[in-house]
Amino acid sequence: MSAAETLSPTLQLAFDLISRRSVTPEDSGCQALMIARLEAIGFTVERLRFDNVDNFWARRGTEAPVLAFAGHTDVVPTGPEEKWQHPPFEPCIVDGKLYGRGAADMKGSLASMVVACEQFVAEHPTHQGSIAFLITSDEEGVATHGTVKVVEHLEARNEKMTWCIVGEPSSTHHTGDIIKNGRRGSLGCKLIVKGVQGHVAYPHLARNPIHEVAPALAALSAEHWDHGNEYFPATSFQISNINGGTGATNVIPGAVEVVFNFRFSTEQTVETLQQRTQAILAAHHLDYDAHWTVNGLPFLTEEGALVSACRGAIKAATGIETELSTSGGTSDGRFIAPTGTQVVELGPCNATIHKVNEHIEAADLDKLTGIYQGILARLLT
Amino acid sequence: MSAAETLSPTLQLAFDLISRRSVTPEDSGCQALMIARLEAIGFTVERLRFDNVDNFWARRGTEAPVLAFAGHTDVVPTGPEEKWQHPPFEPCIVDGKLYGRGAADMKGSLASMVVACEQFVAEHPTHQGSIAFLITSDEEGVATHGTVKVVEHLEARNEKMTWCIVGEPSSTHHTGDIIKNGRRGSLGCKLIVKGVQGHVAYPHLARNPIHEVAPALAALSAEHWDHGNEYFPATSFQISNINGGTGATNVIPGAVEVVFNFRFSTEQTVETLQQRTQAILAAHHLDYDAHWTVNGLPFLTEEGALVSACRGAIKAATGIETELSTSGGTSDGRFIAPTGTQVVELGPCNATIHKVNEHIEAADLDKLTGIYQGILARLLT
Ligand SMILES: [Zn+2]
Ligand SMILES: [Zn+2]
Repeated sequence: MSAAETLSPTLQLAFDLISRRSVTPEDSGCQALMIARLEAIGFTVERLRFDNVDNFWARRGTEAPVLAFAGHTDVVPTGPEEKWQHPPFEPCIVDGKLYGRGAADMKGSLASMVVACEQFVAEHPTHQGSIAFLITSDEEGVATHGTVKVVEHLEARNEKMTWCIVGEPSSTHHTGDIIKNGRRGSLGCKLIVKGVQGHVAYPHLARNPIHEVAPALAALSAEHWDHGNEYFPATSFQISNINGGTGATNVIPGAVEVVFNFRFSTEQTVETLQQRTQAILAAHHLDYDAHWTVNGLPFLTEEGALVSACRGAIKAATGIETELSTSGGTSDGRFIAPTGTQVVELGPCNATIHKVNEHIEAADLDKLTGIYQGILARLLT
Repeated sequence: MSAAETLSPTLQLAFDLISRRSVTPEDSGCQALMIARLEAIGFTVERLRFDNVDNFWARRGTEAPVLAFAGHTDVVPTGPEEKWQHPPFEPCIVDGKLYGRGAADMKGSLASMVVACEQFVAEHPTHQGSIAFLITSDEEGVATHGTVKVVEHLEARNEKMTWCIVGEPSSTHHTGDIIKNGRRGSLGCKLIVKGVQGHVAYPHLARNPIHEVAPALAALSAEHWDHGNEYFPATSFQISNINGGTGATNVIPGAVEVVFNFRFSTEQTVETLQQRTQAILAAHHLDYDAHWTVNGLPFLTEEGALVSACRGAIKAATGIETELSTSGGTSDGRFIAPTGTQVVELGPCNATIHKVNEHIEAADLDKLTGIYQGILARLLT
């Protein structure tokens, strides 16, 4: 691949975005690039910087319904740059594949969204309803001053999104083969189980918290929390970290810390999981502190106008019958869905995200532009 | 306490030893002090430096039986010196208590041993058998270049100790109330349980080693290994350390490391404990590596000449009927007993060892000198 003039408009914009070293929470000028393009086609743009995070809200039109595109300009760190076949911030196309940090997650999607709108507005300058963009530079980081704050800002003035397409890489083998119409909730806990420190030679003077917590962890790991439902797999419990001990081999530690996480279906609530966990801990007579963190509530977009538009646009652009899924990790959709918005995630293939040599099929981005344009046409004309 | 001339010979030597900052494995001149005193009363001294550790073997006489005194000149670190009421290497006597790092463990005992020999040799210049000293400066540290090497050196030329008194602080309330006539064995294990790393949102692609090890640890903690016997308490199992996890809350770790320790009676061997542990691990279908360390085999000195001499000398010097015990931590006795030597530990009270403000009753050291002298008289005249 060589001359820039042979790139499609979507790939050209993807190149421009990937070239910007916007490691989370940096935006590095990506949003200015998007804003210039959107203002040129009649969007009104509101820049929303919270703390050290750049965000913007853009809208074309004042009427309902509102179809919003949501996404992030930040990318995860590159890892060791010497392991990349091509420098991560110097996009290139080799053997039909677009390489670069953010190619899949999710600067490719951002380029497709902007170009899809340009083409749709050119054809339908007086479309129905409104088109909007909700863009943050803090999705890959702590995510506290990004989408969640923009949504609060919109809610405060009662500005609603009817439908939202999050550009996260939802696909598995071909762009559009999977859309995420929901996500499980994520509930974290740091559990500190307390004992009495002592010397291993004098166990009667100590109380070993590792011994006390072991059967409780066995019980939690073996628990069947639910069977999931039509849309969701069963709730899963995973311990990610356990740490106890002074390092010395002859000291019984005074405490052990266990970090675990629930990915939970709509069969559960934060409260049901906490109550059941506490009941198991109590049955094992543990002396503990539990520090819970709600990372996201589960959400679900059932069959309806948005899912139908996605299905139709994917079929028209690619011939693929898409599948609905709620599996996988969290996304900023968790912050948008609670406002009553129908949310789906629809983007390119996710095989290489967060890895070295992140890439996608270059041709898939033009397909994604076509899909987004087809959704606009189905919902706003 | 002020004028040095008011100190007894034992306390004067204890002061001289405690003043030397011999934090393990440093000797800081303690051994030279002892050697000069022993050579002056007819001991032949062999300095044995192994790696960075000073040791010596001293012997007065060439005949059997051999009564050896064993001990160490190194001390554990002081901890925060500002928490000491008196500087740890500036011995002092306040309210009848001798303060200083090593006062109890075990420079006080070393002083009593030397002075007991001086007094005994003065009275019995042609005593039966031999008196010996086996002294190291690496008991509180890794203990790999100390007593174990000296014993190997003696074994290589078939030089035997008949009886050995280790000067470790064995007493609880009054010097001589407890002597240790054996010690449990200590068997350590670092267990690495292997799983498959993954993301908590995709548990079907991972295998969580913390989940897998938890029921095995519950079973090991609940196991009754034996009931002990006449001399030994039951074998005990304690987990000292457990560590698994990357720190990230959304990653299932690829492995978890568990460090545990057995303190075991003569009802067990290293092999029986390993076999039973492995059977429990196998019953839980774990993929693991186990790295075992034999810290010491159990030893037992049954009723006999040495125990009788200790009983008699303690009763004569203090009026106390001593008790035999095998409880507590390990000592260098574990390296000496396997050569066939009868070994006991007999020293001052251990309430403050390894702590800040380590101290003992000053008068107890003179009693200990009397006890050691009484044992010499009972066994070698
Ligand atoms: Zn993303
Ligand atoms: Zn000691």
